[in-house]
Amino acid sequence: MCGIIGVWKNEIGVKNTLYYGLIELQHRGQEANGVAVFDGINFNLVKYKGLVTEKKLEDYPEGILGIGHLRYSTIGKKEILIDRFAQPSILYTVKNGLSLCHNGNIVNYSELEEELKRKGNLFQTDADHEVILHILAEELKNNKTLEEAVNTCMNKLEGAYSVIGITGNNELFAFRDRYGIHPLVYGMNENSFIIASETPALIKNNVRKYFSVKPGELIIIKDWSIKKKQIVKATPKQCMFEFVYFSRPDSVIDGKSVREARFNLGKNMALEYSLKNRIEPKSIDYDFISPVPDTSRTAAEGINEITGLPIREALIKNRYIPRTFIMPKDRSKAVKSKLSIMKDVIFNKKILFVDDSIVRGNTSKTIIEMVKEAKPKKIGLWITCPKIIAPCYYGIDMRNYNEFVAFEKNVEEIKEYIGVDELFYASRDCLKKSLGLEDICESCLTNKYFTPLAKEKAKEQMKWLNAVKKII
Amino acid sequence: MCGIIGVWKNEIGVKNTLYYGLIELQHRGQEANGVAVFDGINFNLVKYKGLVTEKKLEDYPEGILGIGHLRYSTIGKKEILIDRFAQPSILYTVKNGLSLCHNGNIVNYSELEEELKRKGNLFQTDADHEVILHILAEELKNNKTLEEAVNTCMNKLEGAYSVIGITGNNELFAFRDRYGIHPLVYGMNENSFIIASETPALIKNNVRKYFSVKPGELIIIKDWSIKKKQIVKATPKQCMFEFVYFSRPDSVIDGKSVREARFNLGKNMALEYSLKNRIEPKSIDYDFISPVPDTSRTAAEGINEITGLPIREALIKNRYIPRTFIMPKDRSKAVKSKLSIMKDVIFNKKILFVDDSIVRGNTSKTIIEMVKEAKPKKIGLWITCPKIIAPCYYGIDMRNYNEFVAFEKNVEEIKEYIGVDELFYASRDCLKKSLGLEDICESCLTNKYFTPLAKEKAKEQMKWLNAVKKII
Amino acid sequence: MCGIIGVWKNEIGVKNTLYYGLIELQHRGQEANGVAVFDGINFNLVKYKGLVTEKKLEDYPEGILGIGHLRYSTIGKKEILIDRFAQPSILYTVKNGLSLCHNGNIVNYSELEEELKRKGNLFQTDADHEVILHILAEELKNNKTLEEAVNTCMNKLEGAYSVIGITGNNELFAFRDRYGIHPLVYGMNENSFIIASETPALIKNNVRKYFSVKPGELIIIKDWSIKKKQIVKATPKQCMFEFVYFSRPDSVIDGKSVREARFNLGKNMALEYSLKNRIEPKSIDYDFISPVPDTSRTAAEGINEITGLPIREALIKNRYIPRTFIMPKDRSKAVKSKLSIMKDVIFNKKILFVDDSIVRGNTSKTIIEMVKEAKPKKIGLWITCPKIIAPCYYGIDMRNYNEFVAFEKNVEEIKEYIGVDELFYASRDCLKKSLGLEDICESCLTNKYFTPLAKEKAKEQMKWLNAVKKII
Amino acid sequence: MCGIIGVWKNEIGVKNTLYYGLIELQHRGQEANGVAVFDGINFNLVKYKGLVTEKKLEDYPEGILGIGHLRYSTIGKKEILIDRFAQPSILYTVKNGLSLCHNGNIVNYSELEEELKRKGNLFQTDADHEVILHILAEELKNNKTLEEAVNTCMNKLEGAYSVIGITGNNELFAFRDRYGIHPLVYGMNENSFIIASETPALIKNNVRKYFSVKPGELIIIKDWSIKKKQIVKATPKQCMFEFVYFSRPDSVIDGKSVREARFNLGKNMALEYSLKNRIEPKSIDYDFISPVPDTSRTAAEGINEITGLPIREALIKNRYIPRTFIMPKDRSKAVKSKLSIMKDVIFNKKILFVDDSIVRGNTSKTIIEMVKEAKPKKIGLWITCPKIIAPCYYGIDMRNYNEFVAFEKNVEEIKEYIGVDELFYASRDCLKKSLGLEDICESCLTNKYFTPLAKEKAKEQMKWLNAVKKII
Repeated sequence: MCGIIGVWKNEIGVKNTLYYGLIELQHRGQEANGVAVFDGINFNLVKYKGLVTEKKLEDYPEGILGIGHLRYSTIGKKEILIDRFAQPSILYTVKNGLSLCHNGNIVNYSELEEELKRKGNLFQTDADHEVILHILAEELKNNKTLEEAVNTCMNKLEGAYSVIGITGNNELFAFRDRYGIHPLVYGMNENSFIIASETPALIKNNVRKYFSVKPGELIIIKDWSIKKKQIVKATPKQCMFEFVYFSRPDSVIDGKSVREARFNLGKNMALEYSLKNRIEPKSIDYDFISPVPDTSRTAAEGINEITGLPIREALIKNRYIPRTFIMPKDRSKAVKSKLSIMKDVIFNKKILFVDDSIVRGNTSKTIIEMVKEAKPKKIGLWITCPKIIAPCYYGIDMRNYNEFVAFEKNVEEIKEYIGVDELFYASRDCLKKSLGLEDICESCLTNKYFTPLAKEKAKEQMKWLNAVKKII
Repeated sequence: MCGIIGVWKNEIGVKNTLYYGLIELQHRGQEANGVAVFDGINFNLVKYKGLVTEKKLEDYPEGILGIGHLRYSTIGKKEILIDRFAQPSILYTVKNGLSLCHNGNIVNYSELEEELKRKGNLFQTDADHEVILHILAEELKNNKTLEEAVNTCMNKLEGAYSVIGITGNNELFAFRDRYGIHPLVYGMNENSFIIASETPALIKNNVRKYFSVKPGELIIIKDWSIKKKQIVKATPKQCMFEFVYFSRPDSVIDGKSVREARFNLGKNMALEYSLKNRIEPKSIDYDFISPVPDTSRTAAEGINEITGLPIREALIKNRYIPRTFIMPKDRSKAVKSKLSIMKDVIFNKKILFVDDSIVRGNTSKTIIEMVKEAKPKKIGLWITCPKIIAPCYYGIDMRNYNEFVAFEKNVEEIKEYIGVDELFYASRDCLKKSLGLEDICESCLTNKYFTPLAKEKAKEQMKWLNAVKKII
Repeated sequence: MCGIIGVWKNEIGVKNTLYYGLIELQHRGQEANGVAVFDGINFNLVKYKGLVTEKKLEDYPEGILGIGHLRYSTIGKKEILIDRFAQPSILYTVKNGLSLCHNGNIVNYSELEEELKRKGNLFQTDADHEVILHILAEELKNNKTLEEAVNTCMNKLEGAYSVIGITGNNELFAFRDRYGIHPLVYGMNENSFIIASETPALIKNNVRKYFSVKPGELIIIKDWSIKKKQIVKATPKQCMFEFVYFSRPDSVIDGKSVREARFNLGKNMALEYSLKNRIEPKSIDYDFISPVPDTSRTAAEGINEITGLPIREALIKNRYIPRTFIMPKDRSKAVKSKLSIMKDVIFNKKILFVDDSIVRGNTSKTIIEMVKEAKPKKIGLWITCPKIIAPCYYGIDMRNYNEFVAFEKNVEEIKEYIGVDELFYASRDCLKKSLGLEDICESCLTNKYFTPLAKEKAKEQMKWLNAVKKII
Repeated sequence: MCGIIGVWKNEIGVKNTLYYGLIELQHRGQEANGVAVFDGINFNLVKYKGLVTEKKLEDYPEGILGIGHLRYSTIGKKEILIDRFAQPSILYTVKNGLSLCHNGNIVNYSELEEELKRKGNLFQTDADHEVILHILAEELKNNKTLEEAVNTCMNKLEGAYSVIGITGNNELFAFRDRYGIHPLVYGMNENSFIIASETPALIKNNVRKYFSVKPGELIIIKDWSIKKKQIVKATPKQCMFEFVYFSRPDSVIDGKSVREARFNLGKNMALEYSLKNRIEPKSIDYDFISPVPDTSRTAAEGINEITGLPIREALIKNRYIPRTFIMPKDRSKAVKSKLSIMKDVIFNKKILFVDDSIVRGNTSKTIIEMVKEAKPKKIGLWITCPKIIAPCYYGIDMRNYNEFVAFEKNVEEIKEYIGVDELFYASRDCLKKSLGLEDICESCLTNKYFTPLAKEKAKEQMKWLNAVKKII
């Protein structure tokens, strides 16, 4: 996952918008931030480690067009190797330069990279945006239009990609894979045009009205005009994890409010639970709901809507521990966690915890251990995301079957592992109904992939896993 | 306001506890952090700007005794002047050294400082902990015991002080003013003794059972023994703002849970409102309660308890903007704020916002302006802290009568100023009942001070203000 | 000008050699340092601003092959734009990667870059090493051998280039333009093979015996073997400025000691002066010689050898002002300079200053002004480099005709400008004799260029200058 | 050793002078730099690690009076402990504050500190300037004048001290011990008054005419007036090491040029050598003189003056290795050194090396080892400072008898140890004659001390050493 932004302005001065816009997208990536601008003559590029607010506005270059990127990924962690992975990158073709960054994951990245290399293309990073950059640049130097170039590109790429780019021809452009897996929105204020991963980056820059780049669509901004073109047919499959966990609650993805989706999740889970347990929603046997901060607060509100169970927060988060701060390994579990418990809320109570998702299960397990020290009467745990059982090849950092607690454990076993009295997952139906979307990307829930290479890769991973199992 | 910690350990190695303890107290001060340790031979001292997590464990000195301090105060803001204000300080007397830091405010600081200077004492900082340091050191070098020294000290100091110190005689000690204005707690784990501003710093360091240093009490830890002594008679007057705003909700102050106090505040406000408006609590005319993040969430839960109004969060905070990050002046109001609104929650709804307190009123005004853009039907605002109308001389950063929006405005006028449809403050009775304390420090609410010099200073400020008014 | 180094080692661990080697080459470039290594699987790259000693050994990546680069150039000065200009760069081709850095200047850089772009190559920097990288990578992916690739490359490149590179095929290689304009040396110690710009980087890494990469030669190190191949016919034209100013005095370039060259320059200038002025060397009318620190000390020794005039240093340099430290513009001339004068040495004396070269003349002028404050009786100035009148297209940062004080001023006029009583330049004959080289690159002295494009560019610059002159 | 500066200005703006002045004094201390200013109302203080040029002008506070300090000392090396040792310090007395810094060493520091502590004074650092600060502040608060206070102070202090201070009463003052051990000079430019350790700090700040603070003298600058007062009788004993090694060659100490002193040393050594060896100065059997850079260049010129032996530099220094850069221990001797040799100068030659002094002998030994690799015919080594055999209690960092190579070795033995063919020290007579001073501080040469406590301490050290020897 990453956050991206692009700005066109009718005069010099995009860095302010880039800087404050990236701050609004910071939740999408905290490891590195990079900005490429075109100042009418030159492209300039900077890449920094850490949070945007650790740098000053002056540390960014100025231009008339610019793009920015926040890096999240966990590969290439070695502190010193920012040049090998961070975005954006720039390529200079015969007449013009081109720079772009993307959010997502190209499934056939290695295949395309090898093909390009065989054809003679020369690469500079180990990051997948460079494949997109090369394909586009190849087309452009062959005198193709940007539209034609993007067409070629979209027909080659398999996977999830929300791309924002700029050219030395004064164009700002953006396109999104045919599935619209990750969000990409745009809008205007009085003197500039802004494209970003999420709507808050637009709103904080005074954009009143915003739109989505449609799945399969390309938009090009040049001078004061905007050109939109449906490049490939859209077959929407938005990433359900953007709604469930990743995006900000005040974001609107393809016209759907993230906040509303989460609220609905809470409501529908409560209804589903009642139905399943043949019990009136108002009679569900808990004293209160306690969201695991911060994401699941809205779902808790939805549960409250149906069940009437009050919300009482039993956990609090230390706001001053940055995501990248490493707690030493030898310290007690309690200290390892960035959460604290409120003992008097917990003691002798039947508590329904709500969390957005369980991946490995470690965090949940630790939280429950902490909670138990305060002697609750009963602990329930509702998870708004159905069981994650398969890797994501489309941009979420979940890579291997055997890292999921739900991979070969059933709900009963997970319940035991985590140590709660009751564990309840939202169903896939519940999820879809809550998002109000029929076709979502839920491969990590189903282990079924809708693109050919992803299918194949999943099969291979599984085969290998089985082989390993036999040996051990 | 500041955060303080002190550690005694039965072997070398206090810095770990100091470091992770200070992280838990970070909300009490973000401008600077300082640590003084005694390693059996030497005292060592470091002071750094910014957050504790910006430094590594290795940046702190190691010792067998140590104290740490987090600075909050807003005077001496000039970045480069850390040496003039930050704590702790060390003094070396004839046989031993002495280092201490404190949380609070010495009302007669200038008077004592001048007296000491006249007697010949020489000062090194502009911070009030140095007066305490000098008084103690003076007594110690005259062969007084630490008890006698603290006795002299407490009889001289007027104001609020929670003090933690160490001596070259291998003692860790702490004492608290007779009013117990600010909190001070302690406890043990398997190999160390820890004193801190708030209980979470103890708990994260594996302290299971904790106690308060009582108002007027001194505790001394040496070797494996702890000595407690009531130095002056306790006349408790705990700072109500610690409960209302400043402390963490998982803190326990003098046996009272901060979380519970806030929850009670919500409950009692709801009851008071019903009574005042002769309306059933369940009939209060709002669609939902929305806490202003993060402090007022617990009060919102209390209101929910009585009124049944659901909690629906309409505001969210950007977690990645550090408190010290300066937003540029020329940016629009919306961007200036670290908050965002959730439009679909607000639209056409009757919303009851809850906030902990109003000081200047600017923040509330800006939030309400942002909220109105999303067209709510009705906006109410409940404030859990009664009207603040007078300066604090006991350690909260509220200094002048004319900075308070409530100073010469009645509730109706403040309502107009902020732009809400209804504004309701908790009463002082409500506050006391909620805290479960009869005698609290509420001078900022009453303009009545319980120490002589504070009385006088308030009178003088008021006189001057009136004089100014006549001229203008 | 730049400094470069390359290391092959029979086990992991090149970074130590790279780091300490670059420190020995620091005089060749202080603006940025970069290192690329291959660890057997991946290439890793870092680039930093400033001096090598500002970074720790740990800040460099580790590998079994590596190259390092020190950047000197003055374009792209904007602090934040390190990514646009600094070296090395890496390209990944079909099977392997390739990384290289170079010292020199490719005259037909723009032409080759455009040709490559037209063919479809995509560029990532504005630095000329990337053209070399592309040409080589293109050949390699077409299954050419490294030898064949370098052959193609050398036949395309016009200009000065000393190149060091590494491949993912575990090769360390280096080649030097047919003129051998800038130095490139190599040698072995017990477990590694090292190539560098200058011999001190070898010697400090325990290399006892060293060799030059010959003009037009390629060397390839793989496993324990070294392969040498004369790719193009050598027509040596070593840069005289390397001897006169740029290289360290303890360097040996193509078997010629820099120290000896400078010493000879002093000797031959003294003889030339005597002859020209029909005066015995021992009767030259000065009290003493004073070198302008630090480069011209050796030449002063040479003058002393012939004339017997003693060396008395009248100028000293502040060692603690880094090259990149910017003195404020509004300070007096005396402070602007990093030099100080020794008044009692100067007063009432006839002083013969020796300096290596005059480019703009500003520094000399300022020094002489400072010296005059101490009231000398007579000031002479001998310059060991003949009059610089034309731009360098081969790697020295002298770009425009009109920046040279000697461009349209004769010696008499320069003397007046600088303010000395006597000004004497070494002749070109003197220079050649001193270096012991018949064919040197002295285009900046003659305005005659030995490569076609340089000729053309010089002509165009001159034409433009004349056009401008007519207008003004 | 340290460097100090003080500035009075007739308007706000001393930081510029402090900053650029300290840069000129940087050779006197590279570990830390500190500045205290008075802005008419407040004192402000900053202390930084490292070189002045690592900080920007903006990092210093501004004022109308200010002092600056460069720390050299090697105690308290632990990086993080700047607060415990660095200068200046500030004390606030009843009406005013006082800040000062000093260069030198107070022999009875511990005794005075204990006396003060017993009297009740409280200390904040482990640095000896604080004793001076306390004594002065004590007197001032007792309504003594600054003159009277300094009088008391000078009668108490034993040792070497050049002090510069400022008061909240708008005074800049300076005083120097009765022996004038370390230098202290002052002068004016058009709008300010400057006091500093050495003259270059004045000259670079446009001071044309400068004076010495006389041994035993106090000067006070206030408004536009300067008051001078001989506080105690002067008995000059200037530190010979300031002339021989520590000060810049362009400094003038008490009217004596450092450059001239070193030149004389060279001359007189040559004469002494001739006499001793009954040989004509022009027949001394060496091919040339090679100074060990950078200090001994001037002495080499003096030797040349008498012997006619030419100067040929065989050693060069890497300018880019900062003094504080730590070379790793496991690297070969050659790399450990910051020096390089010029092989072709050395081979088969009889070389007379000149160095300023030998303390431990390690550096000389390493240099000679390096030189021998280039196979010289004969190596001589002349040392301009007589044999150092005893500790310095007056401010030079030489503390223990057994650290000196000359402590129990005679010249013959030292010669063997270092590995030269001939070793010749300047005699003490030669030294005095060269400095043109009859009474110098040469206790480190004679093991005779002229102050009572130093005598005693030396005796005790020696006694202890003998005791240890018996045991071993």
